[in-house]
Amino acid sequence: MSSTLDDEVRYVARASADWAARPPSERAEVLRKIADGLDGAADKLVPLAMTETQLAEPRLRGELKRTTFQLRLFADEVDGGGLLDVRLDRADEQWPMGAPRPDLRRMLVPIGPVLVFAASNFPFAFSIAGGDTAAAWAAGNAVLVKAHPGHPELSDATAAVITRVLADAAAPQDLLRVIHGREDGVSALQHPLIRAASFTGSIAGGRALFDIAAARPEPIPFYGELGSVNPAFVLPGAARSQPQQIASAYLASVTGSQGQLCTKPGLLLVPAGTTVLEELGKLEAPGAAPLLNTWTHDGYLAALERVASHTGVYELTEARTSSAEPVAVTLLVARIEEVLSDVEGLVTEVFGPAGLVVEYEDPADVVELATRLPGQLTATLLGVDDEEDDLQLARDLVPVLRDRAGRLLWNQWPTGVSVTHAQQHGGPYPATTAPTTTSVGTAAISRFLRPVAYQNFPAALLPEPLQDANPLGVPQRIDR
Amino acid sequence: MSSTLDDEVRYVARASADWAARPPSERAEVLRKIADGLDGAADKLVPLAMTETQLAEPRLRGELKRTTFQLRLFADEVDGGGLLDVRLDRADEQWPMGAPRPDLRRMLVPIGPVLVFAASNFPFAFSIAGGDTAAAWAAGNAVLVKAHPGHPELSDATAAVITRVLADAAAPQDLLRVIHGREDGVSALQHPLIRAASFTGSIAGGRALFDIAAARPEPIPFYGELGSVNPAFVLPGAARSQPQQIASAYLASVTGSQGQLCTKPGLLLVPAGTTVLEELGKLEAPGAAPLLNTWTHDGYLAALERVASHTGVYELTEARTSSAEPVAVTLLVARIEEVLSDVEGLVTEVFGPAGLVVEYEDPADVVELATRLPGQLTATLLGVDDEEDDLQLARDLVPVLRDRAGRLLWNQWPTGVSVTHAQQHGGPYPATTAPTTTSVGTAAISRFLRPVAYQNFPAALLPEPLQDANPLGVPQRIDR
Repeated sequence: MSSTLDDEVRYVARASADWAARPPSERAEVLRKIADGLDGAADKLVPLAMTETQLAEPRLRGELKRTTFQLRLFADEVDGGGLLDVRLDRADEQWPMGAPRPDLRRMLVPIGPVLVFAASNFPFAFSIAGGDTAAAWAAGNAVLVKAHPGHPELSDATAAVITRVLADAAAPQDLLRVIHGREDGVSALQHPLIRAASFTGSIAGGRALFDIAAARPEPIPFYGELGSVNPAFVLPGAARSQPQQIASAYLASVTGSQGQLCTKPGLLLVPAGTTVLEELGKLEAPGAAPLLNTWTHDGYLAALERVASHTGVYELTEARTSSAEPVAVTLLVARIEEVLSDVEGLVTEVFGPAGLVVEYEDPADVVELATRLPGQLTATLLGVDDEEDDLQLARDLVPVLRDRAGRLLWNQWPTGVSVTHAQQHGGPYPATTAPTTTSVGTAAISRFLRPVAYQNFPAALLPEPLQDANPLGVPQRIDR
Repeated sequence: MSSTLDDEVRYVARASADWAARPPSERAEVLRKIADGLDGAADKLVPLAMTETQLAEPRLRGELKRTTFQLRLFADEVDGGGLLDVRLDRADEQWPMGAPRPDLRRMLVPIGPVLVFAASNFPFAFSIAGGDTAAAWAAGNAVLVKAHPGHPELSDATAAVITRVLADAAAPQDLLRVIHGREDGVSALQHPLIRAASFTGSIAGGRALFDIAAARPEPIPFYGELGSVNPAFVLPGAARSQPQQIASAYLASVTGSQGQLCTKPGLLLVPAGTTVLEELGKLEAPGAAPLLNTWTHDGYLAALERVASHTGVYELTEARTSSAEPVAVTLLVARIEEVLSDVEGLVTEVFGPAGLVVEYEDPADVVELATRLPGQLTATLLGVDDEEDDLQLARDLVPVLRDRAGRLLWNQWPTGVSVTHAQQHGGPYPATTAPTTTSVGTAAISRFLRPVAYQNFPAALLPEPLQDANPLGVPQRIDR
């Protein structure tokens, strides 16, 4: 480990202790000021992002807005105190356990310095000041971000904006520090002062980091959001009544941000004998456009080739380019029997503007495929609410998909992940390495908190949220 | 893997799906019936436990009562529905994120079949129907228990009682299955159908299993409660004003259940120049008694010898036996400078009736030692509420200990862990492998749940807790 990297971690650790001791209202105010600072720097940051990621300006402006909204929503959550999950059990001589219950008061406290590995595909929302950083800050921790090599200048420029805000707000200067390079990222993950880490990216990259976190002398929580195919199931009634609408919406979802979204519906199941496939073939695809960077491009072509060259798979569209940039959408087609004969080979993430459309005849095959899916971020059903055969198949599919995906959708598409209280962005492995958590929405904050109970403590030594006087007015669950 | 073991896991998996689909009230009722069944079998189970564990009858009867109380408390928690953490965000066109908010409804669902590794030292409360099993059942999962070799007959007898209750209650017959032997335990941990595992025991054993869980093709959550020294700090005022009382209570806490408790205060810090140590030397120790079994006995003597033979450590009591059973309490003494010179060597769990008493002069040394402690289940302060030098040292110690322990106590002792809503039994590694969770108290249930969000779903396809009609009357957090 370089001495510079060690210094970086130590700066963050010191800032983390400082930040954890600040009152929640002060922390919330700093989050809001960071949001304001980033909004104010949009005209400088967005062009940089366009240059480094090839993403379009409206998408990037929308993403920045989402990022600052997220900071403000999390600030409100900190202010309210609900995320502390305060529980007070008063002493009870008659506690039916057989022994008196002592006075016990429990709350969540910051876990400590957090290491965030930034993603390539959301240079704002899953990067320097993205969801993981906002969640870790909101929980009361300082953050070391390992920048993504796809947008290094934007990463430094974003950090510079934040550092200025922190100075103006008299907040800990090292609440955020940024490092570059895989080697330093791994060293940071192994550093004893780092208490949790998060990652958004590929299965191979995320698994390698998960393994490093688990192999530490003191293992730490590692929240990795890895890969997902996001199957979408067109039910018979919907396929009959709105084939054109489904085809057009599917194409929009697959090609949004050039298919470089973790919730892109990479697998579409359609009933044979309906016209969904035909409608897909008739649509005019969006023009070719570049991918994020050359290694995304190379990875996309390799993954696409593996699926496209598979027995029984043919191309619906002719747009696939073999090596040149930019690329246009590629839709592949296969019968469900082919997919069932090699689920691992065909149900696999292709990160970019491609989708595999699978025709089925027997609904039982669809349920069978669902039972064999690896863990997913999302699973989507397109159906008609009052058509009995759609409802019947949905009733068979929903319990199966619930066990395999973090979010189930009905007649909406999984791309465009809203930041809310009830959002769930996670799922069984390999969707994530931590299936009991989410990486989007206010529930994501608790990943960076840990519980502590105080037994029989005098009020003078109790944290304010645990005091009977409750000076901060946080929600307290008392004796229940 | 033996075909028998594979069958065991498959039985449990089938029962888990059945159990998850039962209404919460039915699940709660079954938990209560299991509690009644175990209470009714006390006269058969307790004598078996006495024979296999050497623990005394009152302790075992109390432990069984605690175990059945826990099942009933968890049943109430299931009935209430609060553990589902239901969040409803209604569709909102004006959501300030920049894009409309869809209708999102999130709840926690059962994680799937759970593997529980039973502990040696609580043949009821951390074994077949102990805390982990009760939590996994309450969450809606079936459980495969790997029995502890220290009480195999009691394990099978306990399971037989439960199996009869399940049959009478028309509950899934394989809600509980029991396996024996390390090899089958490891195979079960590697089985793809197992979705989470828990363990209570030694650092070495727990770490080995954690590593296996992390190395699976699909890693699963592993909730290991491993080792803890549970430091207790006698502050100057308390040492002056109540040395006899502290000494006597400490001896009781160290020798309870022959010191075979994970919260035994193995380290006592006392101010030099006070009479706590002298009072300890004067006390009449409880008589010698056997430990749980021969390998606990051997492990205890080896661990004790490592500390006792350390430079600067001497024995306060002369009771230490070198190899013969039964054993009496051993209190060792060292100056804090010695401990600071080898924290790893001296701050180490000795599982059995032994404690290391450490004399300090400078309070700064105490804070220094606290900062260097490994993760702990508990940390205890003995102080006088209105004595300023006690409060001052407490104010320095509490934030440091909060970062290193799951439960902090003031003027009470950490042994005797109450089962309540606000209980926290966990802590940073090596106290546990999952520092964001607890293994005791109602909050332990959520370890075996995972979140799922339903987007834009018609009421007919939503689980009842997420419906606007809320037929079960569960707490719903709406739009906030």
